[in-house]
Amino acid sequence: MTKPPRIYFDNAATTPVSEKALAAMLPYFRENFGNPSAIHHYGTEANKVVEERRKQVAKNIGAISSEIFFTSGGTESDNWAISHALAVNGRKGRHLVSTAIEHNAVLKPLERLEGSGWKATLIKPDEYGQITPEQLEEAIRPDTVLVSVIMASNVIGTILNIRELCATAHRHGVLFHTDAVQAAGHIPIDVRQLGVDLLSISAHKFQGPKGAGALFSKIPRVPVPLILGGGQEKGARSGTENVPGVVGLSQALTEAVENMDQNSKRLTDLRDQLIASTLRIPGTYLTGHPTNRLPGHASFVIEGLAHGAHLINELNEAGICASSGSACSASSREASGVLSALGLNEQLAMAALRLSLSPENTEEEVETVAKALARLIPKVRDLTKNNRYSH
Amino acid sequence: MTKPPRIYFDNAATTPVSEKALAAMLPYFRENFGNPSAIHHYGTEANKVVEERRKQVAKNIGAISSEIFFTSGGTESDNWAISHALAVNGRKGRHLVSTAIEHNAVLKPLERLEGSGWKATLIKPDEYGQITPEQLEEAIRPDTVLVSVIMASNVIGTILNIRELCATAHRHGVLFHTDAVQAAGHIPIDVRQLGVDLLSISAHKFQGPKGAGALFSKIPRVPVPLILGGGQEKGARSGTENVPGVVGLSQALTEAVENMDQNSKRLTDLRDQLIASTLRIPGTYLTGHPTNRLPGHASFVIEGLAHGAHLINELNEAGICASSGSACSASSREASGVLSALGLNEQLAMAALRLSLSPENTEEEVETVAKALARLIPKVRDLTKNNRYSH
Repeated sequence: MTKPPRIYFDNAATTPVSEKALAAMLPYFRENFGNPSAIHHYGTEANKVVEERRKQVAKNIGAISSEIFFTSGGTESDNWAISHALAVNGRKGRHLVSTAIEHNAVLKPLERLEGSGWKATLIKPDEYGQITPEQLEEAIRPDTVLVSVIMASNVIGTILNIRELCATAHRHGVLFHTDAVQAAGHIPIDVRQLGVDLLSISAHKFQGPKGAGALFSKIPRVPVPLILGGGQEKGARSGTENVPGVVGLSQALTEAVENMDQNSKRLTDLRDQLIASTLRIPGTYLTGHPTNRLPGHASFVIEGLAHGAHLINELNEAGICASSGSACSASSREASGVLSALGLNEQLAMAALRLSLSPENTEEEVETVAKALARLIPKVRDLTKNNRYSH
Repeated sequence: MTKPPRIYFDNAATTPVSEKALAAMLPYFRENFGNPSAIHHYGTEANKVVEERRKQVAKNIGAISSEIFFTSGGTESDNWAISHALAVNGRKGRHLVSTAIEHNAVLKPLERLEGSGWKATLIKPDEYGQITPEQLEEAIRPDTVLVSVIMASNVIGTILNIRELCATAHRHGVLFHTDAVQAAGHIPIDVRQLGVDLLSISAHKFQGPKGAGALFSKIPRVPVPLILGGGQEKGARSGTENVPGVVGLSQALTEAVENMDQNSKRLTDLRDQLIASTLRIPGTYLTGHPTNRLPGHASFVIEGLAHGAHLINELNEAGICASSGSACSASSREASGVLSALGLNEQLAMAALRLSLSPENTEEEVETVAKALARLIPKVRDLTKNNRYSH
């Protein structure tokens, strides 16, 4: 029995590793498997590839090698960016500025800091999820140590104006971090143009492997470690380097950047088709900015649903994989903080749908999903009305 | 031109991923690539495999699933074990006990803690690298929060008596962590028999992939996170799970445990051959315990060498990959703290040789290495005497 083909529209949660990235990784599991710290053949070969790949990652975001530090993923990078900035700049005070639409990899460390004497101001975005330099200007205090703003929202796809926001922070002598986990590989990133001090990326969001990320830091000091030990990454991040992970991250990022123009055009078309067809269903609303958003990212809230998960389950039955928000909170009984921050009422904020594409998706799939939504949204509404779902 | 076959005797630094572990990982890069937090097909499949593999890891060390937390490797596990124990038990005081032969993944976090009001007592081992319960008894104070003792030394191979040491700590109501990074997959581990509260493992030390580790914790409370965010691992360790990494870790551990009896006998024989042949060269001394040591681990110090790296380089030229101590400090200009702690003078402590085997090594390789050492040790001594190496 062959399974029906599945449509995967949850690429903001994770992506399949690209064929090229996987092929590039394979020799580093069993053949060139050395520990980069070892001084014999296998060690020096492993070290060489890590440094070559560091250079390649740097080049893809307009940085230099010495500014790239490999991590276990975007969450570690975000956590580390914050702790490093605080260690470097902590004498300025105990105040941080961020936004109400950050990923929990930023929000949770801020919450913990609030438990130990720090104060965080979270800027509320406009209805599209945008933050203005004026808002940031207002939030910055003389004792502000760090501003951290997401480059593109995982939940609503909106792209934020990092360049202007960073310039504003810098005018006040405040360090600037951006969580570029959803942005990297999807929209152009040039750290010099942006001006950011710290930037986080995660390989599995652009068809690289899970368990691999990087932190860019141009602060002229080796990052204060979050994880300590053998002194890898110039002492900044200990633990034997995940060589295949580094190779996969670098390869996938290179591929994404090389094909960005063409993928971006194609995915923007597909996305806009999806948005148009979904909005033709009554009682559906786009979340995030209508145009200034990630190329493959379409997100909605839908009237008449008790929980977005109900629609996700029906779509899944129909062979379509989508999300009701961030993967981390897929089954949560609370509304997404991001959607609430946009000013949506709780009922709508609970009933979200996110469709996120990768270059592997096709126009045919978009048409299939559009038809499925036209059929399933009314169906889930009916079931909801008749109390066939427990709320 | 075909390269001559290389002999890899640095398996304590890292190992090639086993064929079975790699084969088990492969489907999780592109086919079953889901994010375990997602509620659709790919997500639930990924979640299922992570939970199955958690159970399998638990079983291999005598634990239950809920006690296993996946990490990015042994260093993160060690760091986390310490921070978690301090968070749980910190009200007891600000004192820790460990040993002078720990890996830096334990020593460096302790050093940092000493910078913020904590005090760490490092027990000095006997000449074989062993610690007695009496020594631990003496080191424990009423304000001791945690005892952390390595299960088997990466540098000298000695296996420590974790069961007795743990019982001693527990008699004083002190939590016990063991860094089992070198031990797991090499010697039997039963966490119930040992009694430990916390135990760290790393996949790439037993033919699993780099970038994957686990922390065992039987403390009846979800570990206080080191890395915060989306709330994966019951909120204990955020970041999208490294699904292929988890699968590879679990598969390699299972393989190592299944074949442990037979591998252990064979590797012990090969190790003892290596020890006997090396000690026949005048001016060579075994480090660590002669018998109570890791099956595939042979370590020495050698008279007449300025730095162990000189011999490692000559071996490398001869197609043999070995180490002068821990991989992390392979090119260090300082003597290994572990060797100094054994009471060796600095000159000898600088001139270490570590040969560490995996089940993939053969008797023929052992014979080749024995012959090479008999030839190269005198050669390096001559070059050293004639100042042909810069010190």
